Amino acid sequence: MNDKPVQKPISTAVIVSKVYKRPMAGPIREIADKLTKLGVKVYLDANTAVGFNISEIQSITRREMRDLDLIIVIGGDGSLLGAARTLVDLKVPVLGINRGHLGLLTDVNPDNIDESLKKVVSGQYSLEERTMIDVRVSRDSDDGVGELIGSSLATNETVIHSGTMAHMMVFKVSINGTHLYTMRGDGIIVNTPTGSTAYSLSAGGPIIEPHLDLLSLVPMFPQSLNCSPLIIPGKSEVKIEFEAPDELAELIAINCDGQVTMRADTNSSVFIRQHHTPLVLIHPEGYDYYSLLRQKLGFGRSLV
Amino acid sequence: MNDKPVQKPISTAVIVSKVYKRPMAGPIREIADKLTKLGVKVYLDANTAVGFNISEIQSITRREMRDLDLIIVIGGDGSLLGAARTLVDLKVPVLGINRGHLGLLTDVNPDNIDESLKKVVSGQYSLEERTMIDVRVSRDSDDGVGELIGSSLATNETVIHSGTMAHMMVFKVSINGTHLYTMRGDGIIVNTPTGSTAYSLSAGGPIIEPHLDLLSLVPMFPQSLNCSPLIIPGKSEVKIEFEAPDELAELIAINCDGQVTMRADTNSSVFIRQHHTPLVLIHPEGYDYYSLLRQKLGFGRSLV
Amino acid sequence: MNDKPVQKPISTAVIVSKVYKRPMAGPIREIADKLTKLGVKVYLDANTAVGFNISEIQSITRREMRDLDLIIVIGGDGSLLGAARTLVDLKVPVLGINRGHLGLLTDVNPDNIDESLKKVVSGQYSLEERTMIDVRVSRDSDDGVGELIGSSLATNETVIHSGTMAHMMVFKVSINGTHLYTMRGDGIIVNTPTGSTAYSLSAGGPIIEPHLDLLSLVPMFPQSLNCSPLIIPGKSEVKIEFEAPDELAELIAINCDGQVTMRADTNSSVFIRQHHTPLVLIHPEGYDYYSLLRQKLGFGRSLV
Amino acid sequence: MNDKPVQKPISTAVIVSKVYKRPMAGPIREIADKLTKLGVKVYLDANTAVGFNISEIQSITRREMRDLDLIIVIGGDGSLLGAARTLVDLKVPVLGINRGHLGLLTDVNPDNIDESLKKVVSGQYSLEERTMIDVRVSRDSDDGVGELIGSSLATNETVIHSGTMAHMMVFKVSINGTHLYTMRGDGIIVNTPTGSTAYSLSAGGPIIEPHLDLLSLVPMFPQSLNCSPLIIPGKSEVKIEFEAPDELAELIAINCDGQVTMRADTNSSVFIRQHHTPLVLIHPEGYDYYSLLRQKLGFGRSLV
Repeated sequence: MNDKPVQKPISTAVIVSKVYKRPMAGPIREIADKLTKLGVKVYLDANTAVGFNISEIQSITRREMRDLDLIIVIGGDGSLLGAARTLVDLKVPVLGINRGHLGLLTDVNPDNIDESLKKVVSGQYSLEERTMIDVRVSRDSDDGVGELIGSSLATNETVIHSGTMAHMMVFKVSINGTHLYTMRGDGIIVNTPTGSTAYSLSAGGPIIEPHLDLLSLVPMFPQSLNCSPLIIPGKSEVKIEFEAPDELAELIAINCDGQVTMRADTNSSVFIRQHHTPLVLIHPEGYDYYSLLRQKLGFGRSLV
Repeated sequence: MNDKPVQKPISTAVIVSKVYKRPMAGPIREIADKLTKLGVKVYLDANTAVGFNISEIQSITRREMRDLDLIIVIGGDGSLLGAARTLVDLKVPVLGINRGHLGLLTDVNPDNIDESLKKVVSGQYSLEERTMIDVRVSRDSDDGVGELIGSSLATNETVIHSGTMAHMMVFKVSINGTHLYTMRGDGIIVNTPTGSTAYSLSAGGPIIEPHLDLLSLVPMFPQSLNCSPLIIPGKSEVKIEFEAPDELAELIAINCDGQVTMRADTNSSVFIRQHHTPLVLIHPEGYDYYSLLRQKLGFGRSLV
Repeated sequence: MNDKPVQKPISTAVIVSKVYKRPMAGPIREIADKLTKLGVKVYLDANTAVGFNISEIQSITRREMRDLDLIIVIGGDGSLLGAARTLVDLKVPVLGINRGHLGLLTDVNPDNIDESLKKVVSGQYSLEERTMIDVRVSRDSDDGVGELIGSSLATNETVIHSGTMAHMMVFKVSINGTHLYTMRGDGIIVNTPTGSTAYSLSAGGPIIEPHLDLLSLVPMFPQSLNCSPLIIPGKSEVKIEFEAPDELAELIAINCDGQVTMRADTNSSVFIRQHHTPLVLIHPEGYDYYSLLRQKLGFGRSLV
Repeated sequence: MNDKPVQKPISTAVIVSKVYKRPMAGPIREIADKLTKLGVKVYLDANTAVGFNISEIQSITRREMRDLDLIIVIGGDGSLLGAARTLVDLKVPVLGINRGHLGLLTDVNPDNIDESLKKVVSGQYSLEERTMIDVRVSRDSDDGVGELIGSSLATNETVIHSGTMAHMMVFKVSINGTHLYTMRGDGIIVNTPTGSTAYSLSAGGPIIEPHLDLLSLVPMFPQSLNCSPLIIPGKSEVKIEFEAPDELAELIAINCDGQVTMRADTNSSVFIRQHHTPLVLIHPEGYDYYSLLRQKLGFGRSLV
């Protein structure tokens, strides 16, 4: 909760929005306008510009965003997760402006947008690093350098399971080369602290303060009830191998942030490592994570 | 735990086994031989006879089993679950002989087989009724008599979910026509007391004495943590409807006992009712459910 | 959920309230007045009359309540629990009028009181039986007829524990004379379906429809994580014995409904049986248990 | 899991054992003898010497232990926890030799004692730091420097509760001066990573790798089911205040490692901070924490 109020003021920003069903042209223009009035030079992500057919804001490619002061993602937590995977390596701070419900990542809401933008532009903000994970799926490889089948980044979690629910499999998990357990169940979640308030929470995982350098392993419907969630250092390498009857051999699914799905068979291994670059979130002054937990998750709220 | 030791002696029996990879011809012949020596007239299920190419035991069709004293299922709990769905309406008691691991239904083990068969044949057994459920999937129907898409029996449970794990959906559940809740999560398990030691247990459901006339509703990874398992009367009718974004509309899966899968879309409803006829299990004298829980599930066992 | 709207109209009623800090004379007089205007002959419990110094309403003893049509308990769920223990054997229906917060038993609220009383008095109500338990503590007795140390009724639950939290003990539990398990933990909750929404819920127990004839055993912080809640028939006899180091020998506490505490040592046994007479609750027409669960417990409510 | 095999060889050691019912003179003499034969100068803790009436080994006071190479604690995890509280500030590495059952701290077992001692004495060991917490109870103080009622160290956890089980209270928790939540329940556990496999585990807390610099807050039977365990930085200051009806005002108990109990009233505050000095454990070469989890806790072990 490092709350250093006076940071570098913002003079350039780019707006990114998921090109999806909902018409976002209105909100995009509205926010661009507000920023311009605050003296910020505003750009629009080229994909977003094409998707919503907006031509009056100068559009730029992802590569050109590298030298800007701020990336603004308009949408819900899902939009921010999607943007994070493609934009993290630019190392530009990201501000989420919430249009969906439940925003633990997008902490600017429609009703405080003017005040929040003013704070951010004038340097009244804090920066928070959120670790991401690199998920790699390879075949027939003990060293992680075998045939790469697929890879993806994730900000919240990767969920590794048998492809169909209610199909038990055997997951052989090792951490930094040391065997952890051979678990029978539906799947396993490996999540970052950021993801501790997402899918992991429903599976009984703990809430982890988001700036901590940790990973959490949460089994899904383990046949062993003695299989509590496990908290390990963020720099750990987690390797997951599989055992399953032949008939299920093609069924493994590796899902990242609920948005990217990779498929594998039982001769594959999944390797999870921390990504080299963290996502940098920008919080307008006054950010209070515990308050978000209480408001958005009802954390600790008693039945009345 | 009704343990009435002296019942009607067994004079006719049929052996059923799942036709699957494992060679079961040996065990089938061995058990047929033991029963013959105990004076029982032994038949073989016609499908089993064909599947394992056994011709020296007289084979009969499922319909012809109706007048026999006993059905013997050789295999694991999975085999017994499969047999139960097709044989329950014959109303013939079923004895499970365990070849797989973890047998809470198949309580005769290889190491006590001679003694168990002797007890059963001589009438030293108890009968236990296990309720089953009827799962019907229909489209555009409020009364359950609309267009029937599919139906199946289940001895353990039905698992209703979004087809792929980690895809949240909205489940609108009502019981006997009264709204229960609109739950957001991965799925919902509706299980019998018999199924309380199966999949439901991993999802946090309670263990329920198997002869009780109850149903249990256990949410899977509900977004609300206030969504405890619910125990309702066995005679209840549970109706489940769906809400989901269009893109997921075809994804609902309804699984019975981990063996039968039906597909539906969000315009469908699932109706779960108790089946009119219970499965009748036969337990050799000395059956002790609590002891099974301790042995097979480690129930209550302390860490030493 | 049996909702038979037309029952015997109410012509006599007695008001009971816990004599406690809160001044209840006002609410008592108000409700007596409303009932009198509806044509009901109203009495006041003698203890309540003395406690709140009310003389204008005719007071009667508990024994004299036997022939009345209705007992009204004013207060929260706690007041109703207290009244139930002393009044259940009168077999007079009980209506709870809620003054505290969270009333799953007292389903008449201040804002619907006029309508509710009118319905009840005119016979527009349903009756619901809630089983209670009889908790007996005896010393050196295998048959339950040894030296009786103490006994109490409970509507919700009995909590049997080591007297101080965070002190592990060993609980040897048997049901109808058959050994269930030897559990190491802080304690054990034995609850009725009515109690399933009380203390048991926090300990991971399931919600049980309140009219069912069941008992639930929920371990408290068991050292074994394989110790799921267990649902057994309501007519079961549960016996709990203890093992503990000598130094803790005097520490066992047996609590009923959070209101009555009995003490015992490790040479004692606790016997729990269903009480011969159920508590009869009266619900004004329109009672909906599931709706109460959603409103009072947030049951199934998604995070928004 | 830092496994640096070659460390400073051990030339001096002191043996400590809890003076308790069990006769430990035999094991103490045996281990002293083994160490002497390995060339180590062996001392005995003065209290231990008096308690077990052992005079042939030279006894020393706690203060004199400061310059030794090794402290050996003979007993179970409980003995090691007790020793840690009084010996941690000496900064001498501690080796636990297990006589009790379940030793996650005392990783030398009777059956590998000779090999383990040989390894340790010759420098074939790793050192692991385990953080401890400082628990202070004060009255009428917002800054932690008010009237100090009591204080204790803890290696596993502090359990703060209403003194009697099944008595709900209100716990107001803040972290580093920021309000976390106002939780209604039986109590709250604040534990170190070392304590994550102890009491916290039964309450649903995650397992945390023991060398991590973290604290875990685990509510006990919270009335809100949305009150998941929370993982925070080890350097956090946790403050707990209370609300309770007057009648319970004297009932708060603050327990450390299940061994020290402090009492407080609702005008008190409890402050938990990391202790300035960690406990240093010495592990003979080959120490494998994950293997301990599997062996001692059945971690991940499937039902077969």
